Amino acid sequence: MIIERIKGLFAGQLLGKQVTVAGWVRTRRDAGSFSFIEVNDGSTLANLQVIAERTLTNYEDEIKRLTTGCSVVITGELKESPAKGQAVEVLADVVSVVGWADPESYPLQKKRHSFEYLREISHLRPRTNALGAVARVRSHLTHAVHRFFQQRGFFHIHTPVITTSDCEGAGEMFQVLTASEAARKGALPEQGKGFFGKPAGLTVSGQLQAEVYAQALGRVYTFGPTFRAENSNTSRHLAEFWMLEPEMAFCDLSCNMDLAETLLRFLLADVLAECAEDMALFDRFVAQGVIKRLQHIVDNDFIRITYTEAVDRLLSSGKSFDFPVSWGVDLQSEHERFLTEEVYGLPLIVTDYPAAIKPFYMRVGDDGTTVAAMDILVAGIGEIVGGSQREERYDVLLARMQHLGIDDVDYQWYLDLRRYGTVPHSGFGLGFERLVQLVTGMPNIREVIPFPRTPGYAPC
Amino acid sequence: MIIERIKGLFAGQLLGKQVTVAGWVRTRRDAGSFSFIEVNDGSTLANLQVIAERTLTNYEDEIKRLTTGCSVVITGELKESPAKGQAVEVLADVVSVVGWADPESYPLQKKRHSFEYLREISHLRPRTNALGAVARVRSHLTHAVHRFFQQRGFFHIHTPVITTSDCEGAGEMFQVLTASEAARKGALPEQGKGFFGKPAGLTVSGQLQAEVYAQALGRVYTFGPTFRAENSNTSRHLAEFWMLEPEMAFCDLSCNMDLAETLLRFLLADVLAECAEDMALFDRFVAQGVIKRLQHIVDNDFIRITYTEAVDRLLSSGKSFDFPVSWGVDLQSEHERFLTEEVYGLPLIVTDYPAAIKPFYMRVGDDGTTVAAMDILVAGIGEIVGGSQREERYDVLLARMQHLGIDDVDYQWYLDLRRYGTVPHSGFGLGFERLVQLVTGMPNIREVIPFPRTPGYAPC
Repeated sequence: MIIERIKGLFAGQLLGKQVTVAGWVRTRRDAGSFSFIEVNDGSTLANLQVIAERTLTNYEDEIKRLTTGCSVVITGELKESPAKGQAVEVLADVVSVVGWADPESYPLQKKRHSFEYLREISHLRPRTNALGAVARVRSHLTHAVHRFFQQRGFFHIHTPVITTSDCEGAGEMFQVLTASEAARKGALPEQGKGFFGKPAGLTVSGQLQAEVYAQALGRVYTFGPTFRAENSNTSRHLAEFWMLEPEMAFCDLSCNMDLAETLLRFLLADVLAECAEDMALFDRFVAQGVIKRLQHIVDNDFIRITYTEAVDRLLSSGKSFDFPVSWGVDLQSEHERFLTEEVYGLPLIVTDYPAAIKPFYMRVGDDGTTVAAMDILVAGIGEIVGGSQREERYDVLLARMQHLGIDDVDYQWYLDLRRYGTVPHSGFGLGFERLVQLVTGMPNIREVIPFPRTPGYAPC
Repeated sequence: MIIERIKGLFAGQLLGKQVTVAGWVRTRRDAGSFSFIEVNDGSTLANLQVIAERTLTNYEDEIKRLTTGCSVVITGELKESPAKGQAVEVLADVVSVVGWADPESYPLQKKRHSFEYLREISHLRPRTNALGAVARVRSHLTHAVHRFFQQRGFFHIHTPVITTSDCEGAGEMFQVLTASEAARKGALPEQGKGFFGKPAGLTVSGQLQAEVYAQALGRVYTFGPTFRAENSNTSRHLAEFWMLEPEMAFCDLSCNMDLAETLLRFLLADVLAECAEDMALFDRFVAQGVIKRLQHIVDNDFIRITYTEAVDRLLSSGKSFDFPVSWGVDLQSEHERFLTEEVYGLPLIVTDYPAAIKPFYMRVGDDGTTVAAMDILVAGIGEIVGGSQREERYDVLLARMQHLGIDDVDYQWYLDLRRYGTVPHSGFGLGFERLVQLVTGMPNIREVIPFPRTPGYAPC
């Protein structure tokens, strides 16, 4: 018995044929001598309408008792549907009930549930229209990322989660210990001790390791989970999130910006074309106008300005901000959103930030005060990409590390990349959940990752 | 200036054109009035031969000083090569030296280095032929995995690394703590305390969470890092490794085996076709005959036997094993390899293992003593896939958990999947490094992951 996926049936090739589908009941309603059963199998947002006539042997005993969430296997003829809004329906010969879902206790009923409520049942929420659509779109975007890079000759590198380097030199790292180490007093192992022979934590970025491979294979990307042990309980932060980080040898800041812009516009165009049904749901029920906003990004070049220009623009706006602006301060979310939403109305690439507010590995400019950084800001999200040209000059990098008090003993391997066959190279990090938020319009980041991890919260 | 990738140049379209390439010197040798420079940019295994004539302005000062590992940018005409073994070469107009690599200290020289030595310089080892080839093949296999599943309507689900469930009920889990928690006495947080409100560790499998999504979207897969805090210092174990885990609703053990076999044969056929140059290197220098062995797997159906048949076959072999065989014991690597290498000469799917040696979530057979498990064994590796049909019956699952002393309070969400709309479902785990070992023939698992993590060892 071949089970067809409902998405395939809507394509229509099997019209007039006997088909078998398997999925979950979304709703059922009686209509005289038969029941309409709406079945969903997750392959697509739309339900398949099944007509179960009362002549079926289990009609009274089972079919009439079907409620939201029950699982069924149905065999019948695929027919053109006279109803509007759907191309096909199935006239059932057999409706087998596989699993019941007691309507007294099943937490998902036909009504709309709030996202907050659904978060309390994160093992059931992908069965809803909105969270199912998010999961499909997230999967599609993941694959689009791989297609983009593989087609361009990039190699995917699995950089490690457990690390002994702290890339940003900031942001608290989660510590990794064995159970017996954790049970001891002062659990953090000393140098030369512990499972790995030194203290180990969860990576905050795969960049430094990606640089190793960029200087061997030329163009690479890493795409995996990254971590922050910050006690931030906001709609924008997760303790575990996915980050995409390409890294390119022989690539300067301009090349880096071009790649990031091309990537973002490719991903948005791709998801608009390939996930139209799920996107229509977001546009209608989650974030009105989101499709138009994404198309606007696809259709227009990003604006590129320097940090200095951005600060001038903010100062001359006459607007009062919660965080006052002056040259040298980091841009806050309110500044970023004002610039991209109110001033330019397009994604904005801001370059050449003050060295003092950026990490040690960014390339110092000729002025000695800025670095070759670039952040991409988008409406509604703020920073979605942060990148830079890396400092490839051994002496300059070493001096900067010493200036910042970074112990170069731990970074000899990183310095070696500048000691032997160094090349200009660049890369960036794209916060994948922020991308999924941009695409779906979901207001809270906890809705765009299957099992969010935040302070006090790690379901399943 | 457009920098061409060397892989593209070997395709030949730019013959007769002025091109620019950028990469690293592998070797240089003088030949009268010019130097041959072999340049590699990582896009492909083969080096591009560059001819630098002594008339170049920096010939004496720079070109003659080029040694292994120096980085260069070269512009010149792409010509047909008269030399055998290469189709094209570049006659250089400009050879710019970007970064030097002092031959006195650069750890990689023209000679072959042992894999053990290269492990001590894991930030430089991808610059070697063998480790570069492994990285390219690993990237290709990763993408082939995604293509395989996406083409078949599976959705990629990012299951969490930080988890409060221990899927296998065995294998020591790494604990995750904030730095301040780790510094306290008896660092493990109590229930209701700690960053996540309960003890958290690094996942040993994404299966349980994948089951959540399989029962919403039908067919899903998770593919990411997993962890074991075992103190195993062998050529087969890593503390951090990648695992691929598909999970399918409405799929029994037979469907599960079909998918796993189709996947493995697809991946091997794909890498043989698409990575022929790198595969030839492994076949020649790492594992003679590996191409033929992989083709043999692609060309033949896998053998399927039950555990009981496997035990009978081992008992009747007359062979003496280090671990004695009897019905009820787990198969050891020596048994697995004997069966697949000496008895059948093909990959072997062993099914229906004793319940007592398998985890709680596997579906109990009608006999009450076996479970619907399946392991795939391949020559040289042993177990490469482990899977099962999952127990979908609420009462049976609960009884099994209680029998094993698993606290069902932590697994209410997992039991809910059987309470509401339960369906027969199956899945498996494929150890990705074992796959890369099978493909490349690399004897030690530490060579097939970019930055291996093992007891006492976590470079970069």
